[in-house]
Amino acid sequence: MARNTQVSADHNAPPITDILARHVATHPSRGWSDAVEHEALRTWLNWVGCAIGAAGHDSVQAALAAMQAFDSAPQASLLGRSERVDMGAAALINGISSHTFDFDDTHLKTIIHPAGPVASALLALAEHRHFSGRQIIDALVLGIDVSCRIGNCMYPDHYDRGWHITGSTGSVGAAAACARLLGLDVQQTAMAMGIAASQPIGMREQFGTMTKPFHPGGSARAGLTSALLAQSGFTASAKALEAPRGFIQTVSTKHDWSEITDELGERFEISFNTYKPFACGIVVHPSIDACVQLRAKGIAPDQIERIDLKVHSLVLELTGKKTPADGLQAKFSVYHGCAAGLMVGRAGEDEYEDAFVTRADTVALRAKVHAVVDDRIDEASADVTAHLKDGSQVHVFVEHAIGSMQNPMSDAQLEGKFHSLADGVIGADRAQAAIAACWGVAQAPGVQALLQAACPR
Amino acid sequence: MARNTQVSADHNAPPITDILARHVATHPSRGWSDAVEHEALRTWLNWVGCAIGAAGHDSVQAALAAMQAFDSAPQASLLGRSERVDMGAAALINGISSHTFDFDDTHLKTIIHPAGPVASALLALAEHRHFSGRQIIDALVLGIDVSCRIGNCMYPDHYDRGWHITGSTGSVGAAAACARLLGLDVQQTAMAMGIAASQPIGMREQFGTMTKPFHPGGSARAGLTSALLAQSGFTASAKALEAPRGFIQTVSTKHDWSEITDELGERFEISFNTYKPFACGIVVHPSIDACVQLRAKGIAPDQIERIDLKVHSLVLELTGKKTPADGLQAKFSVYHGCAAGLMVGRAGEDEYEDAFVTRADTVALRAKVHAVVDDRIDEASADVTAHLKDGSQVHVFVEHAIGSMQNPMSDAQLEGKFHSLADGVIGADRAQAAIAACWGVAQAPGVQALLQAACPR
Repeated sequence: MARNTQVSADHNAPPITDILARHVATHPSRGWSDAVEHEALRTWLNWVGCAIGAAGHDSVQAALAAMQAFDSAPQASLLGRSERVDMGAAALINGISSHTFDFDDTHLKTIIHPAGPVASALLALAEHRHFSGRQIIDALVLGIDVSCRIGNCMYPDHYDRGWHITGSTGSVGAAAACARLLGLDVQQTAMAMGIAASQPIGMREQFGTMTKPFHPGGSARAGLTSALLAQSGFTASAKALEAPRGFIQTVSTKHDWSEITDELGERFEISFNTYKPFACGIVVHPSIDACVQLRAKGIAPDQIERIDLKVHSLVLELTGKKTPADGLQAKFSVYHGCAAGLMVGRAGEDEYEDAFVTRADTVALRAKVHAVVDDRIDEASADVTAHLKDGSQVHVFVEHAIGSMQNPMSDAQLEGKFHSLADGVIGADRAQAAIAACWGVAQAPGVQALLQAACPR
Repeated sequence: MARNTQVSADHNAPPITDILARHVATHPSRGWSDAVEHEALRTWLNWVGCAIGAAGHDSVQAALAAMQAFDSAPQASLLGRSERVDMGAAALINGISSHTFDFDDTHLKTIIHPAGPVASALLALAEHRHFSGRQIIDALVLGIDVSCRIGNCMYPDHYDRGWHITGSTGSVGAAAACARLLGLDVQQTAMAMGIAASQPIGMREQFGTMTKPFHPGGSARAGLTSALLAQSGFTASAKALEAPRGFIQTVSTKHDWSEITDELGERFEISFNTYKPFACGIVVHPSIDACVQLRAKGIAPDQIERIDLKVHSLVLELTGKKTPADGLQAKFSVYHGCAAGLMVGRAGEDEYEDAFVTRADTVALRAKVHAVVDDRIDEASADVTAHLKDGSQVHVFVEHAIGSMQNPMSDAQLEGKFHSLADGVIGADRAQAAIAACWGVAQAPGVQALLQAACPR
């Protein structure tokens, strides 16, 4: 028997599904500023690097084995690998690899990692159906605009109640992007997003397991499938996003519709995308940044008597592990992050390998780092003082860490990150060619140059 | 930055994921009463008939076209059709067709349609991997036990807030069933259910569109994929179902864990499955049943002066359409249901075809049905009086309609329903052979006999 009760249903939402479908289907190609366009290229580059970096990870191997059980057809490539699988499986697996190291992009206002769902779906579809680079970047900007605006509308309630917002908003964003790439009209685009609206993916309880990176992968595949279904005439509610028992009101008690409609077509959420310089949680980044700066001032580990670190209480609450036993534990150790920054000037995946974490000199330097809580210091900042053996002190205060909105990574730093991820998988020459293909994608006839570089046969 | 607030989180849930995984992986084959076993066969039969019946529907055509875009490999069959697609696509499409007419089974306590997600996944996997009928029925009973127990735990809050509970619980149930079929151990079964727990599918806003039947289909595919991922070593949280930010607490504020754990292995939820005798919402069934009984008493349409119908207010609220213009509108007309019952003694898909709905004699008889609200009558009952042209009256009161728990359809009636759905698609002889194959599935080496009958080449 149908029940009719629902807590605080909003029956007067604007026609969000139609508004977004119109935006996605009709916004002009390259209809944004140079800054937006450049941020889209940076997003694409960073996503490709992250996916190549984890291409050999157990999560990717397991997902590939499962997809091969379906006798998946060789339609599309896997970044950093030689195998080819069907478009849906490629979207799934590239989405998994791009998020496996937790090193991908972040839309800070919502903590969405926006590229994974959208770019993974687009690359697979564009390769198999031969869409141009210009079409891909258009679809990337618009698809990410959809997921992040829906995220803005629901955050924080939706995240607080347990949803991994990357995968829950990602299905709709990926569907929108694929609809744009396929050239669907407004009505079919609305259907594509509507079908995807029934497929939010991801709970936060999965953090720390392979199912976390499954979320962007699964939503990439769900979005791609939804767009193909819509193209074939499959129908969904034309109010699937905004209706009282549609997606948004079902998965969130907060729904601020103006976050979706305000400045639509003028402000693009991809503008606010950021990229992690270090392969750990953002809360540790200011401390690592400060230690990297100390090293840049010429301070070597053997000169150091003690490092005094002052941080907000949240930093030690989340990453206060003093003596991490392996790479995974080290990700939750601000002490280890500082040691890596002082020793090698970076904290990439290599610095979270077990071998590096347990090296005698790493352990010794980590022991010299002393952290104290000072809640006058913002969560996004760190205050670090090096006490040297000669009795001198060197002080560094980081207000906004590298990689934040206020202090973004430079293009050169993004390329360096790409190399640190990709060189060990495909070699430095291929990595360099892949970087060039990413910067040039919008002028390219397709993704062939990128895939030739990124997928050794 | 990770947030730590969640409304009313329960940190003391029993280890539900582990408890259910142990149940699914270790319960003995055929470890239940004859009554449970027989209900499983009835569930299987009814599901096959529904799937064959809608095999030619636009929803199925569109879904098949989308799956063919992936160059899907011919691993598994589509009921009522000749094409073969990969296991995941077959699970999706058979799940869609089985729910397209809204004519499938119902677990009344939760309004879950339990067979769609579970049986669709099992048939595809069993065909390709050659599992026996005994293994299929074991997995069907246990998979449905998982979805319906999770449904019991969350209902009604979960449904009220907008979830189509069939698809949201179906992913986990289908994963459990496929894990059982694959012979996964307790640990891998927990992983399979855990991966599926991140993929609840379906919002009620989609009712009336093709995305409604997509929900059981999508959850069938999600469950099957999750089991194959787990078999390949993919990991999920071992508390994915019950943790504060796991599946159940994220999608429902109500979580009564005892609904999952009580009498586990003794009481099987498939015992409470019911089958619709009429191709419309359950709220109309008592009125149709009463009119079918009037016809059985020898009353013909041309004898009728007027039909007086007394029903609960909810009946007219949901199905009060007096003059339906087409088949879809007729599904929301108790008047039409009564006319069909009086005219032909049934209300199957044929009686909801536009041609039947708009026939002059149908329209004329429908106009003679007068309904009044009487809230002393239960929602599950109907009071009908036929006023005949000769001045006499015939009264029928239906307390529990045919198809309810209290008044279940007989096996012969289920076979009649099967024929009414399948004969027009595959012919009566094949339908009869398919019925025989369904009743005998538990003794069969596999599903070949069923598929030879149900899938014309």
